[in-house]
Amino acid sequence: MQKTPQHEPEFIRKVPDGDSMERDVCATCGFVDYKNPKIVVGSVVTWGEKILLCKRAIEPRIGYWTLPAGYLELHETAEDGAAREAREEACADIEIERLLAVYSIPRISQVQLMFRAKLKHPDIATGPESEAVGLYDWADIPWADLAFPSVGWALRHYFETKDRSDFAPFSNPVDGL
Amino acid sequence: MQKTPQHEPEFIRKVPDGDSMERDVCATCGFVDYKNPKIVVGSVVTWGEKILLCKRAIEPRIGYWTLPAGYLELHETAEDGAAREAREEACADIEIERLLAVYSIPRISQVQLMFRAKLKHPDIATGPESEAVGLYDWADIPWADLAFPSVGWALRHYFETKDRSDFAPFSNPVDGL
Repeated sequence: MQKTPQHEPEFIRKVPDGDSMERDVCATCGFVDYKNPKIVVGSVVTWGEKILLCKRAIEPRIGYWTLPAGYLELHETAEDGAAREAREEACADIEIERLLAVYSIPRISQVQLMFRAKLKHPDIATGPESEAVGLYDWADIPWADLAFPSVGWALRHYFETKDRSDFAPFSNPVDGL
Repeated sequence: MQKTPQHEPEFIRKVPDGDSMERDVCATCGFVDYKNPKIVVGSVVTWGEKILLCKRAIEPRIGYWTLPAGYLELHETAEDGAAREAREEACADIEIERLLAVYSIPRISQVQLMFRAKLKHPDIATGPESEAVGLYDWADIPWADLAFPSVGWALRHYFETKDRSDFAPFSNPVDGL
């Protein structure tokens, strides 16, 4: 992995050797300032019929409800990252079952890997990024107060397939709802 | 998205506000030098029973066989990225069918999204990153000359499920073969 230059970079736009697209390349040291999409890992976590939701204590969308999810870290598998996010945001100890969906959000250059998971035990608590956590029946999900569209997508895709294991993961819903 | 600092950064290790891990943070401007895992998108592409392979014209693993795959670009969906890579590396016009596998390669901080796809027509040709491209029968796949372990994983996972559409995507094989 390239190191960020330790000097004042002088970026020019050029196609690096062996590349096919223009990038910001430092005219002094050749550093290529690649910008890459980011990976978000998260999960729909259940305890029996109830679903774990977290009320965001941080921006963006503070005060709105979300699933435990966040950026994958270096040297982490997608599954380990999703389990870490559940631990950090809801003090939840989860077991990943399978991949539920892969959503691409090209506007913000994100790919979200959403897993289906179970709580190993029902003890949950707020982490630093959550002002509340709760286990919700399907009928009580606060649809109008979800933080992001993909939270609703994942919940609906979970519900549609909750009694099945043999399905292809979803991608973005065509209707965007 | 943050801009790379236009001055000489003075990085110190600290936990940024609202974060939980130490990062390189510029003491002058507060720029956080996040390092993120990268997303590789690719596909097992077929024409009838034959599978598209590309012989690498570039390092790493020049001269070895691979599937069309590469880094996802900004503002691109995973599916569009996989189709672009097939176009760039094999001049192949493909239709994505479904997600075959998600491999995490934590050693090199990669997550690979591998799709199952079909050629729309059998015209293929070498792109700049390929010294040869070919459509291979299963029996003729050059197993000893594959570029990366995950190429073999994707081929085997494809073959195991080629007549099915209703399966969960694979993750890394437990035996790593």
